[in-house]
Amino acid sequence: MKYQNLNEAVETLKKLEQTMAAYNHVLGVLYLDATTVAPKGTAEGRGQTMGIMSGIVYDLIANPDNGELLTYLESHKEELDAQTKREVEVFRKQYDQYHKIPQGEYIAYNVLINDAQSVWEKAKNTNDFELFAPYLEKIVDYNRKFAGYYNEKLAPYDALLNEYEEGLTMKTLDAFFAQLRETIVPLVSKIQNTKPINAEFLNKNYPIEKQREFSDYLMDVLGMDRNYAGIGETEHPYTTNFNNKDVRITTHYYENALDSSMYSVIHEAGHAIYELDCDDCYNYTFLAGGVSMGIHESQSRFYENLIGRSYEFISYIYPKMQELFMEQLADVSAEDFYKAVNKVQPSLIRTEADELTYCLHIMVRYELEKKLIDGSLKVKDIPRQWNRLYKEYLGIDVPDDTRGCLQDSHWSGGSIGYFPSYALGSAYGPQMLDAMKKEIRDVMVQVKNGNLMPMRNWLKEHFHKYACFFKPRQLFNRTCGKFDAKYYTDYLKDKFTKLYDL
Amino acid sequence: MKYQNLNEAVETLKKLEQTMAAYNHVLGVLYLDATTVAPKGTAEGRGQTMGIMSGIVYDLIANPDNGELLTYLESHKEELDAQTKREVEVFRKQYDQYHKIPQGEYIAYNVLINDAQSVWEKAKNTNDFELFAPYLEKIVDYNRKFAGYYNEKLAPYDALLNEYEEGLTMKTLDAFFAQLRETIVPLVSKIQNTKPINAEFLNKNYPIEKQREFSDYLMDVLGMDRNYAGIGETEHPYTTNFNNKDVRITTHYYENALDSSMYSVIHEAGHAIYELDCDDCYNYTFLAGGVSMGIHESQSRFYENLIGRSYEFISYIYPKMQELFMEQLADVSAEDFYKAVNKVQPSLIRTEADELTYCLHIMVRYELEKKLIDGSLKVKDIPRQWNRLYKEYLGIDVPDDTRGCLQDSHWSGGSIGYFPSYALGSAYGPQMLDAMKKEIRDVMVQVKNGNLMPMRNWLKEHFHKYACFFKPRQLFNRTCGKFDAKYYTDYLKDKFTKLYDL
Repeated sequence: MKYQNLNEAVETLKKLEQTMAAYNHVLGVLYLDATTVAPKGTAEGRGQTMGIMSGIVYDLIANPDNGELLTYLESHKEELDAQTKREVEVFRKQYDQYHKIPQGEYIAYNVLINDAQSVWEKAKNTNDFELFAPYLEKIVDYNRKFAGYYNEKLAPYDALLNEYEEGLTMKTLDAFFAQLRETIVPLVSKIQNTKPINAEFLNKNYPIEKQREFSDYLMDVLGMDRNYAGIGETEHPYTTNFNNKDVRITTHYYENALDSSMYSVIHEAGHAIYELDCDDCYNYTFLAGGVSMGIHESQSRFYENLIGRSYEFISYIYPKMQELFMEQLADVSAEDFYKAVNKVQPSLIRTEADELTYCLHIMVRYELEKKLIDGSLKVKDIPRQWNRLYKEYLGIDVPDDTRGCLQDSHWSGGSIGYFPSYALGSAYGPQMLDAMKKEIRDVMVQVKNGNLMPMRNWLKEHFHKYACFFKPRQLFNRTCGKFDAKYYTDYLKDKFTKLYDL
Repeated sequence: MKYQNLNEAVETLKKLEQTMAAYNHVLGVLYLDATTVAPKGTAEGRGQTMGIMSGIVYDLIANPDNGELLTYLESHKEELDAQTKREVEVFRKQYDQYHKIPQGEYIAYNVLINDAQSVWEKAKNTNDFELFAPYLEKIVDYNRKFAGYYNEKLAPYDALLNEYEEGLTMKTLDAFFAQLRETIVPLVSKIQNTKPINAEFLNKNYPIEKQREFSDYLMDVLGMDRNYAGIGETEHPYTTNFNNKDVRITTHYYENALDSSMYSVIHEAGHAIYELDCDDCYNYTFLAGGVSMGIHESQSRFYENLIGRSYEFISYIYPKMQELFMEQLADVSAEDFYKAVNKVQPSLIRTEADELTYCLHIMVRYELEKKLIDGSLKVKDIPRQWNRLYKEYLGIDVPDDTRGCLQDSHWSGGSIGYFPSYALGSAYGPQMLDAMKKEIRDVMVQVKNGNLMPMRNWLKEHFHKYACFFKPRQLFNRTCGKFDAKYYTDYLKDKFTKLYDL
């Protein structure tokens, strides 16, 4: 295929981008259906459809004509407008990824992942790591191999990290995590010598109908425009978006854990707001949506922790909470509630961890992943090493693999190198807040008045609206300067020293 | 493209069928999402995706290679197994239809339909026909044009009727409706001279949560396996299916109309059972699913009217109803309830019409559609003509377009020529019941015992399992003989003469 002129090549690119967006939309809706309302027995037919659709998507991207198109566009790089130039860059990355993986391996890997997910679920439910181990071995092997395809110049684990957060390396993470450990470990041990916070009232009975009403209220407070943002219910909460005017979050209600759904709604709303506030010009292009897992997590955790777990936010929403849960919260003050949802308590399950110990859970996974990929850790030894690290980092004994190394779905889904972006996202937040405070001096006063728009607008102007136009590091640095974990460690020290009166 | 041998051609066909099934699946899920949970403001992005996807589907079917494939397969017709032979036949019909519609028109039409649905909803809610009129004008124009593409030898409206019920013509319908009118009109006027049945208790307050529970109960009684059949909520109830193990029905709950959701659930369950009971061998082929709208409606109305509105069925479910709606139905007997849900009362809304006057609603739409398509009625004149016909056929005044010509979603969805299949389906039922009774003598005794399986199995053996293997008329005739509206008119006369003691 030859292009007559640049216009023709650009048009071909734009058309491909729109087509990809349409496939992403329908595959996203299929997943949304599967996880929300689809009857339990319908997986087989959906599997058939997913198989066919992902084959089509593979062909669409890996099509050798695209190589020619890319080469042509790259050779005319200087004539392209800035957005198209960046679209070409992102497309190149995607094309190389697909194209360098031989189709046979790509398909075999997808079949493996599909099988691995149900095996993992079974292994988790029956505490049977050995059942899952052979699948995980293969997944690790593939990921090591793919890392070479992605970027043969990088160490394999760096190449994987780069998939989730462009430019992230082990060198950065080692230093980052060391710095975190230095702050968190002594703080946690100091806290463990104080009088424990009472958080039992969070586990009273909170009727689900009322919790749903509460979610609607939270969506309003967070400024989620219900014309473009929906909320559903799934086993594990997540956010998905089809374009910047169609975003869905999900949550899971537990009758005996008010904070579980409450904070998943606020967390997912953070993701959703990022997607909703991307500029229209990126819709249906390769630049649509949030730029990286790290930046995305920074937004969800900004809303969840910096806003949602602040005393100011809780004091603003508390009258409504007491109205909805009159009986349950009758003798609980806003301050009691604030303390309860910030209670520090080393625990087994990452997704239920408090803000302070959360990153320790990530470090365990990071240490294991690094070694799995460099070959110094065998899959069969994961449980022992997992338990050792939980003891070392969190001081707790892991009673079984269900609540240990089998708890997360990421590895069974093929995501290795993803976990660190959770910690990175947490750490980005306080540095963003610092930059924000230079322009909005009374951030926490605004929060206390329930007026979240100034902060949202600031995030939009500096981050959200750019979608994938900048690389994640570029996007961060242009507003916040070089990343420095000190903002995060200072924030944690300050918050928990005051909270626990250390 | 040349085929080496028949196997290769058949494989190409089967692969195309599977691919089409996958696209139908994702487009179906997109529609389900749009009508159930999608936020109101998300139509634009979905329109974009629908446009692209329907372009792809168009290419997939209208692809000239398919013409060659079809010619090759048709020339080897006698070597094909019966199922593949029929697949080729159905494919030929589809190919000719698509192939004749220029791609630009096909895509523009699909985008129009997506827009029209949200405009119609708004127009209906605000009683603003003028808002919807320009969309409907375009839909009518497209349908008139498409009718010519489908079959230029037929009158345009006959060509449209043929889409929903192969072989159906205005000539047949004119005679059929005349025969119905002869039975229904005198019956209705006789009934209007009797003491009215009390049905006011149906409009007491029935909490929606309780109605949802009632729906679940009805699904159980009707034998809907919840592993494969889901229930959702939409403005307008419907059934959709992605394969024979993934069927979804929807309903709409009104706090002050118990029978509305009750009978929509039973009606849609009739559609769903048809889909669930198609043979596996037709999954992912062009023969999957119900064969025509008329046969489909015969199944939904069989369940809704012949079973669901029988005294036997009501007496079976009544204890559960009294348990769920203790207060509301305390002093209402099963017989009172039976009478109330069969009360004849010319009314405004088709979907809430009683069994006897239902077809009069269809006749109004039929008369208008005929004239819209032959050009003798302008869209802007629909409200006036609608209201005139309601006065003439049902003797009632239409107070506004919301309860008049804006009540149905069909036209906004592009379905013109669909309504008559409701009447036809209603009329098929009693003739099927007659055939059924020759093999199951105690049909209504079984219903009274809540044992619906013998009837479902009979319907499966004679109709459902064949999916689209037979043409609709063939399918009907091989079990019931030639269609004769007399079975239906006799049934109506018998039922309502007894009910009203005429």
